[in-house]
Amino acid sequence: MQKSDLPASPSRASLAATAPSGILDGLRQQRAGEMSPGGLARDSVARAQASQAVLKAFTCINPALPDAAAAGPLAGIPFGVKDLMATADMVTANGSRIHAGHVPAADAWVVARLRSLGGFVTGKTVTTEFAWRQPGPTCNPWNTAHTPGGSSSGSAAAVAAGVVSAALGTQTLGSVIRPAAFCGVVGMKPSRGAIARTGVHPLSGSMDHVGVFARSVSDAGYLLSWLIGTDAADRHGVPLPAFSVAPETGIVPLEKPRFAVMHTTVFERASPAQKAVLASAADALRTAGAVVEPVELPAAFDTVWTDTMTLIDAEAAVIYGPICDRYPELVSAHVHGLVERGRQLRAETYLQAHDRQQALRDVFTQVLHDYDCVLTLPAAGEAPRGLDDTGDGSFCTPWSFLGVPAITMPVTLSENGLPLGVQLVSAYRNDLRLLRAARWCETVLGFSAACPIHY
Amino acid sequence: MQKSDLPASPSRASLAATAPSGILDGLRQQRAGEMSPGGLARDSVARAQASQAVLKAFTCINPALPDAAAAGPLAGIPFGVKDLMATADMVTANGSRIHAGHVPAADAWVVARLRSLGGFVTGKTVTTEFAWRQPGPTCNPWNTAHTPGGSSSGSAAAVAAGVVSAALGTQTLGSVIRPAAFCGVVGMKPSRGAIARTGVHPLSGSMDHVGVFARSVSDAGYLLSWLIGTDAADRHGVPLPAFSVAPETGIVPLEKPRFAVMHTTVFERASPAQKAVLASAADALRTAGAVVEPVELPAAFDTVWTDTMTLIDAEAAVIYGPICDRYPELVSAHVHGLVERGRQLRAETYLQAHDRQQALRDVFTQVLHDYDCVLTLPAAGEAPRGLDDTGDGSFCTPWSFLGVPAITMPVTLSENGLPLGVQLVSAYRNDLRLLRAARWCETVLGFSAACPIHY
Repeated sequence: MQKSDLPASPSRASLAATAPSGILDGLRQQRAGEMSPGGLARDSVARAQASQAVLKAFTCINPALPDAAAAGPLAGIPFGVKDLMATADMVTANGSRIHAGHVPAADAWVVARLRSLGGFVTGKTVTTEFAWRQPGPTCNPWNTAHTPGGSSSGSAAAVAAGVVSAALGTQTLGSVIRPAAFCGVVGMKPSRGAIARTGVHPLSGSMDHVGVFARSVSDAGYLLSWLIGTDAADRHGVPLPAFSVAPETGIVPLEKPRFAVMHTTVFERASPAQKAVLASAADALRTAGAVVEPVELPAAFDTVWTDTMTLIDAEAAVIYGPICDRYPELVSAHVHGLVERGRQLRAETYLQAHDRQQALRDVFTQVLHDYDCVLTLPAAGEAPRGLDDTGDGSFCTPWSFLGVPAITMPVTLSENGLPLGVQLVSAYRNDLRLLRAARWCETVLGFSAACPIHY
Repeated sequence: MQKSDLPASPSRASLAATAPSGILDGLRQQRAGEMSPGGLARDSVARAQASQAVLKAFTCINPALPDAAAAGPLAGIPFGVKDLMATADMVTANGSRIHAGHVPAADAWVVARLRSLGGFVTGKTVTTEFAWRQPGPTCNPWNTAHTPGGSSSGSAAAVAAGVVSAALGTQTLGSVIRPAAFCGVVGMKPSRGAIARTGVHPLSGSMDHVGVFARSVSDAGYLLSWLIGTDAADRHGVPLPAFSVAPETGIVPLEKPRFAVMHTTVFERASPAQKAVLASAADALRTAGAVVEPVELPAAFDTVWTDTMTLIDAEAAVIYGPICDRYPELVSAHVHGLVERGRQLRAETYLQAHDRQQALRDVFTQVLHDYDCVLTLPAAGEAPRGLDDTGDGSFCTPWSFLGVPAITMPVTLSENGLPLGVQLVSAYRNDLRLLRAARWCETVLGFSAACPIHY
């Protein structure tokens, strides 16, 4: 670990001495009277302010005082909200210079939901430009010379560094799972459409998901149990079966789940260390009593990577074409590239990709028939060095394309002291089963390394 | 009226002397014991056989005996089913030589539903090739030298000629409303997605509707109240609010509805007689106490005709491209044309049309805010002479594009003795309100002309 990359955190001494809380921790602390109403939120704002000099995870910190009388299942819990999601009280710039200073008229659906449940928005977290490739300034709290991943860079980093209890993000290709894995936190994208996307700046209607970052599987599951819901304005919404999670117990682990270990065709891009993590996790789960079997993704899925880019390029071109035409100087080459590629696509190519997307989701359900979930890689390896690129999202591509639920959790640290994790994936709408399998993995695989930058 | 075009119907004398029954009539006859169980269905099969020499409305007549013990809300009622809908017991050729002799493994969802409700399928009715432009042999029972319209040609003609009580059809552009208007029957397409399309050969996933042909607004409404429903395999399904229609009373008319008279940009294509029908219907409704006001479709709707063809061409090219490539000689120039145009379309053009389709539906709801429904033309005029072309569907284009419910009913006869009607259109998912407004119109406008060919 390159200790020299880890500057001292300047204002840590001024913060409350309590351990940074996850969601269920925070609720417990409040129930036990260990934390006054509004205390967690006020503390989170102070941590956010302290973190900015180094971490740069926030585009805006909430200037309002937390409501000391906040009530509801997320009462007083502080959250980071990706700056791709509209907030009526804070600037929402979508990672773009074009929208600098823009304050939307209304909260995004998921932000309104979070607030109606008593949650507090500590601040808006850095996103890459329009949730595509052009990075923001956020660095990885495990090593500030490394990327936190993207596009939900700030959400992942802020949770990892203890600034917020959890955070909201989005994933089109790999924008929740990849930064969560790079930053050593739990990241989950539920089935596509499970959380309404109204007020979330779109990149690709066929691919965009809302997801969460949390400190544990139970935190992620509890949060999702309250956030899932549809909205008439998001016509791709899919009502997910409701489930409830008791805050005292969290997610109840599955008994000895059945895992299908899948490599996919991009496996050879992974680092030896990342491959070894998958192999040793599989061994550990098997030793603990799970069924762990290699399963190959059928050859029909080989088109998934190309089809994904077809959908994203085509749909992004419609959204960002007029923006590129109007503000060519204010848009990165990455977004210009999307538009240029998308405008060349034929309708037939697009529609064929779309048809395969629908058809393969059903095939995938069959492939997983005898298993609770897939066990696979979340990324090619540790967070790459440098802040100019947020890393390779292609290990997330099939699961994003299919719109199936996916979760990542940290398992160990690399030689460089950066987190390495695994990704679990279940069939469409099998979100609760995925969470229960993941909770079991978490108990077996554990992960207790402390992030060196922590506020 | 060209009487010379109307051949005598050869076997009429051999049929039951009862008046041909609509759905609610037939149920009443059975309740009253005037018709034995299975009698209506057997009678319908005999009428279908008798009609074939002249009308040519059927591709296949059900060889099975009706179930004399049929039960359910449609028990014993005979229906025509467009030969675009799969039937496991009868050939389903989709109007194409390629599928000649093909017997599907399972009934289409709507056919299974009809049968589960006790309905009897008298036979499969002629469709144009793949529900597009290449006509079948059916002629118009009001004048056999004229087209019955298309693509649901046989369903419209069979209802008009008293062969079946009602019939199923589909509309992509104008394939229910136009033939219903040309044949002087009630035709309705409910909100798009209200009846699942599983097992109905697709033309354009964004445009295809399942609809019905009936003898009265109450018959259409009663039938729809039982048919609406979604199926997981049709991902465009939209659960419509359930409604029930008492068979004794039928649809309850709205009290003095509010009508928005809309011409749309294609109005000048209509014949003077058809324009006069609209004007006189508006006067009659106003005299009877309705609010009838001219309303202009906003200019944003001017792209609707182009966008509709973009959606149909693009989506049809994906479905029919491989069919044209494989069987070039067995596909009409009309379908080759769809594929050629569709393959040239860019994804951006397609997606922009798709976005406008979604957005304009909400605008249309606002446009109709102060009205129960639109009053407009169903077609350019009477059924054109000749069987080579099924007529101009463009008067249906906006309502098909928007996916909003539409109904047509006959109002009078042209100088040539062919039916002329009106079309009513309501906002998305306002199907019951449309039916109630239409029922009121029916009581005011009446229509009692007898079709000269009647079995």
